[in-house]
This record gives sequence, structure tokens and C-alpha cells, in this order.
Amino acid sequence: MTFRKRLERQVLDNGMVVLGEPIDAVESVAFNFMLPAGASVLEDGFCGAGNVISDWIFRGAGDKSSRELGDALDGLGLHRAGSVGSAHLSVGAALEASNLSEALELYADIILRPRLQDEQFAPARQLAIDAVHSLDDDPRRKVMIKLTEQFYPHPLGRSTVGDVAELQALSAEKTRTILKEHFNLSQTIFAVAGKYDFDSVCRQLEGLFAGQRQEPTAPVDLGPKAGKYTHIDDESAQVHIALMTDTARLRDEDYYNARVAISILSGGMSARLFTEVREKRGLCYAIGARYHGLKDAAGIMCYAGTTPEKAQETLEVITGEFNRLADGINDDELARAKVGLKSALILQSESSSSRVGAIGSDYYMLGRVRSLDEIKDAVEATSIDSVVGFLRNTRFEDFTVVTIGPKKVKYQQ
Amino acid sequence: MTFRKRLERQVLDNGMVVLGEPIDAVESVAFNFMLPAGASVLEDGFCGAGNVISDWIFRGAGDKSSRELGDALDGLGLHRAGSVGSAHLSVGAALEASNLSEALELYADIILRPRLQDEQFAPARQLAIDAVHSLDDDPRRKVMIKLTEQFYPHPLGRSTVGDVAELQALSAEKTRTILKEHFNLSQTIFAVAGKYDFDSVCRQLEGLFAGQRQEPTAPVDLGPKAGKYTHIDDESAQVHIALMTDTARLRDEDYYNARVAISILSGGMSARLFTEVREKRGLCYAIGARYHGLKDAAGIMCYAGTTPEKAQETLEVITGEFNRLADGINDDELARAKVGLKSALILQSESSSSRVGAIGSDYYMLGRVRSLDEIKDAVEATSIDSVVGFLRNTRFEDFTVVTIGPKKVKYQQ
Repeated sequence: MTFRKRLERQVLDNGMVVLGEPIDAVESVAFNFMLPAGASVLEDGFCGAGNVISDWIFRGAGDKSSRELGDALDGLGLHRAGSVGSAHLSVGAALEASNLSEALELYADIILRPRLQDEQFAPARQLAIDAVHSLDDDPRRKVMIKLTEQFYPHPLGRSTVGDVAELQALSAEKTRTILKEHFNLSQTIFAVAGKYDFDSVCRQLEGLFAGQRQEPTAPVDLGPKAGKYTHIDDESAQVHIALMTDTARLRDEDYYNARVAISILSGGMSARLFTEVREKRGLCYAIGARYHGLKDAAGIMCYAGTTPEKAQETLEVITGEFNRLADGINDDELARAKVGLKSALILQSESSSSRVGAIGSDYYMLGRVRSLDEIKDAVEATSIDSVVGFLRNTRFEDFTVVTIGPKKVKYQQ
Repeated sequence: MTFRKRLERQVLDNGMVVLGEPIDAVESVAFNFMLPAGASVLEDGFCGAGNVISDWIFRGAGDKSSRELGDALDGLGLHRAGSVGSAHLSVGAALEASNLSEALELYADIILRPRLQDEQFAPARQLAIDAVHSLDDDPRRKVMIKLTEQFYPHPLGRSTVGDVAELQALSAEKTRTILKEHFNLSQTIFAVAGKYDFDSVCRQLEGLFAGQRQEPTAPVDLGPKAGKYTHIDDESAQVHIALMTDTARLRDEDYYNARVAISILSGGMSARLFTEVREKRGLCYAIGARYHGLKDAAGIMCYAGTTPEKAQETLEVITGEFNRLADGINDDELARAKVGLKSALILQSESSSSRVGAIGSDYYMLGRVRSLDEIKDAVEATSIDSVVGFLRNTRFEDFTVVTIGPKKVKYQQ
């Protein structure tokens, strides 16, 4: 099959990049503003401010109080989507196409003219603090957050939920300053996918966000990685094992070879981790590896939840399977990996919300958006030689490991 | 807007109902077999057998070993979806449309000719046991499972993950008998949505599943509800509060009035629970209520995660908001609830996987499938009088409450 998508792109006078991908025969539209205010770009000691900001800006904006703004957003039937990542703080939504223009008006207020009232600051900060505490009851999520923090060179993997002591010390004044400094429209990416008219969207955004170009904020200095093995002692029922090892970034030549290798490791029922760890040895109930990429660093991220007795063997079998990849892969494995990756692409191509995230992220990481056909062809072009060649050049010897549970594992270092 | 969907329906010679809903301009298809082997229809003492069966039937079927079957499924790039519910054990997938026919062949083997080998039984059972244990590290999910169990008249809300002691006592022989007795094709519903040809699907299924009609299994006898308040003592960081109260079933006249009322309570930022519990009082980080319906009983299900200090007030504010609904709702609330429900419908209508679940469930509960236009019109037809009339007739006085945490709450017995 061939994808018939086309990408639309325009740069506004203020420097904001607008990307669009129409999807045939849908009645919905999804949009997303990627603001350059992610956790890694904030000053040290203010990690978590992004989560407070994400809540605070919705507590009244422009001529609307918190209550009026909530009413107006719900009145458009929009399903909010937002997140704080390493590089960006994203706010967006999915909704019926005919309400897009009204939604963009409200979002211009939220981004440019949030009220940021003192009395709304404390509850916004408290909810961010509660969110950190709630991780104690969700060790599976907690171990992955800690893993990202340990794996990436500081501050790229900095916790996107924040730290309780830092959040408690955060003032309304400081948070306003952070917001002002980092809501830089010239470095903002706006994406829309589904049913929309690109020219009217651009015209409307040009009007709503009219303004001067802003200087880019300084790039962050990268520190070293944290330690190789971190254990968090916890009276949990299971041992939660998370590990991660370097791999190709999206802009690297070997990116698709890496994706195929991960698919062979963890792409389905027939994938090696699933058959070796779960099915044959019955070592754990939950196991999976996936690609996790930032612009300047990327890794293969793996999670397993198991009993204290089986934790050591689980870790060893997993790292063994990573290393065994370089010994070779067979034709059937390659064929299944390709089918799996292409099938995921087809399912993604039909969802406005998935595509809006994908095109924005592509643009940030590559400076352009890959078409679905380009991705399909690149997956198709991988071969046993290219994948094994890649694997032999990047032996998985260096893992960052984090465990949460009643018992440590032994890991080198 | 008007939905242009049409429903296709046929009954096979063996009694299996085949439902289809085409979606324009997609390249994917989703399908689902709803087998009448859900947790509530199994004998007492064998709760959890469904989870073992869901795993075991994929460990080899027809002429394929476990490994060969996994390879074949992954070779079609299918994304498996399956679940054990109260009434049904469902197996299905989403995939590229051109692979549907091969996928259905494999699923006919999995359903009709699973190998069910002894040596594959122990690992399948062990994984089901591990899944139960893993709930101890996921109190948020655990409290909802316990809530369903306590709320519905026994055995309708029976745990779909099972019980460790019962799973440990389960034998391969007994599990085979359960499977044989409950994989009743005459009571099976097959649904397909997305891109497919209905006539070829029906022809293929008629061939693959040819067989005699089977007698329906006896309906289950309903017991009483369990107690009103259950506390599970746990050294968790938060108190996890779950509560549920009776509401209209899908086949009841007041169904849409109930959906509107729930939307006013918890449909978005402007909804009452969100503003009263989270925004104004800052009582908890996570709060939400939703509709949960079986064929013969339904409830409004609510979750809140909060600190031990705030737990009592949180529970009281929530039940207070439920009860305050009958005092009246205003025009704006009604309008927003309608927009929200219709918007959710539009987003759902574009996803093959969502639609395949919805049409199967409709057929089971109503004996027919509601068109999207019918749902839209019914939502539109609700009024303040109809919603408040419903609320006054079904005062929310009777809640089933479950808490997990370091401290009990006080609740009327």
C-alpha cells in the first residue's frame, strides 16, 4: 500500500512553525503547541515547574476566570492532551473539526495571557506535589522515571514530574519568570492533523500570535550520566527492573536498523524477550522493550516486573538477549519485524492525535517531517546485513539499571 | 453533522452473530470474537480460569506449535487485543486490512483447535498468578477490581483476574473442561470494523466455524450484593477510594439521562467533581467518575486518590456532589454535557478498534446495534426536565465503597 498523506508547512512572522497533515474522511481534528519549556531546559532546582505551569495556565486566561475558561473549553467538547517532556511543554486537544477556530482562540489566551493569579498558584503547586507522592503507589511508573533520569546525560533525562522539596520551595513569582522566559513563540512548533483548512489555520494563528521574533534560549550544557545501577528499597510485592542502553538517534543513519533490532527483541509474541523471558522461563508477567529517543540521545528502554527470587535471573536473561542479537538474526525475524513496524505505522496514520504528536516531534528532531512513505521505504530497505552490521558496531555492553523492590540485584559497578 | 455509517449483520448456520461496520478511507481493520466464557459464568471456585485460557489457547493451535503460532500472528503484523470481562472472554486484533483473511484462519484454530498441552499449562497458570500478585503494586487498579466485586450482585462483578488460591488449585484437565463447555459458538458474537468485505468475511467464517448449533448454557443465578464498605489495609502512600452506585442500564429508558448526569459530574474541567474536589478544595490529585455497565446491572463508578488526612472529607464531598445533582442542573451544564458526549462519539467513530468493541457490546446488551446517529439524537433529546426527573427518581443514597490505604474512612453501614 501507499500512503497518500501530504504535509503542509508554514513559518509565521514570529518564527512559530506550523505543520499540518490532513487525514481523509475524518470529522475530527487534533492540534498541539510544543512550547520550549520542557524539564531539561529549566534551571537546576526548578525541575517540576513545568507541571505547575501546565495546570496554572488553565486557571483563567484573557478575559475569562478559571471557571469561565473551563466552561468554554468543555463547551467545545475538546479532549485535552498535554504533557511535560524533556524539551517541550505541550498543550493541545482533539475535537470536532468545526470547533477548531474557537479552540485556537482560547489556546492563544492560555499561552499568551494566562492570568497566573496568586490564589490559584498554591492549589496548582499542591496538585503537582501530590502527583509526585502518588508515584510511591505506582512503582512501575516510578522506576521508568528514575531510569530516564539516570540514563541520559544531565539534565536531558530530568524528572518531568519534579521533586517534592523543589516544588515546595517554588514561588508564584519565580514560576511567572520561568514561564515568561520559556514560552518562546519563535521556538514553538504547532501541529494540526485531521480535518482542517491549512490556510485559515495559518491566517488565524498569524493574527492570534502576532509578535516579534524572540532570541532563542541558550542550549543546555550536558553533564555526565549518573551511576550505572540504582536501587530504591521498597516493600513492594514485586521487583521492578528497568534498564536502558544507548542506541541510534532519529537523525542517525542506523535509526531504522535500531528499530528493526528492537522489534526483533520485543515486537510481539514471537519476539525474543517475550519467548525467552516470559514464555519459556516464566520469569515474569510483564516484560517489554521500546525505543525512547530525545533529539540528542536515544536508548532502548526495557521494563520487567518479577518476584524477588527471579529478579537476578530475569536481569541476566534480558541483558543476555540484548547481547545475543549481534550473533545474528534470521530472515523470518527480519520479515516479521518489518511487517510489525509497517502495521503500527498504518494504525498510527489513521489517528489525528497520533499524527499530531509524530509530525511535531519529527520536525523538532530532524528539522523536517518524514512522510509515512519515507518511513515505510526506510523500514523496507533494512537487511540482515544492515541490522547485524549496526548491532556489531554498537554492542550493548553498557546498561543503566534501576530496581525498585525489597531486594537488590547484582549488577557490574 | 451526520454519521454515514451503516451496520452489517448476519447470523451463521451455527448461530454465531457476525456484525460489521465499515469505516471510510481507512486501511486497517479490527475484529473481535466475544466468547461466552467471562468470569461471571464460570462455576464458583474457578474464577480466573479465563485468564489462563486466554494465554493457553495461544500456545499452539491446529498444526502449529506455540512458537509457530506466535511467528504466524506476528507475520501478519497484528496488534492483539483481548480481555476477560464479566460475560465474555474476548480475543481479537487490529491489523492491515489485506491480512484479515489469514488472521481469521489462525483465530479459527485458536478458538476451535487449541493444542492445550500439559507442559504449556503450568507457565500459563503461573503468569495468571503473577498477574494477581502484581496488583499489590498497583492499588489504583486493585481498588477498582474489588469495587466491581462488591458492587454487583454475585457473581456478576467477580474478579476477572482471579484468586491466587483458586488458580493454584486449577488443573489442566479442569481448564480444558471449562473451555469446552464455554466456547459456545452459538452464543458467540463476532464483530469487524474498518476496511473489509462483509460477504467474504461471512463466507469465510461460515466455512471456518461450520458446525451444529449448541444449546445455550444456563443463565447464572444472582446472589446478593456484598457489604457496603470494605477496607483493605495497606502501607500505601495514598488512600485509594473507590465508590459505585446504581444507575440505568443500556436498555433502560433513562440511560441517556444517566450519561448526561455523569458527564455533568465528571465530564471535563468544568464538571462538578473536578471543580469541587480537585480545583476548589485541592483534596486530591486524581478524581473521576464514569459509567460502568453490564447487561443486567449498571453503576456510576468513581475513583479518588488522596492523602490519609484528606480521605474522609474527599469521600464526603464526592457523595455530596452525587446527591446535589438532584437539586438541579443548569442550561450550560446540559449543553456542555451534550457537546462532550457527542464529541467523544465522533472520536470513537474514527477508530476501528473502538467501534469493534462498541458494536459487539451493543448487540450483547440490546440484541441490536445502535447507530451513531441514534446515539447522537438520543443525547440531543435529553432535557433539564428529563435529567432532573431521572435524578429525583434514583437518589444516590446507596453507595458501595472500597478503600485501600493506611487508614479507614467512616462510612454508614
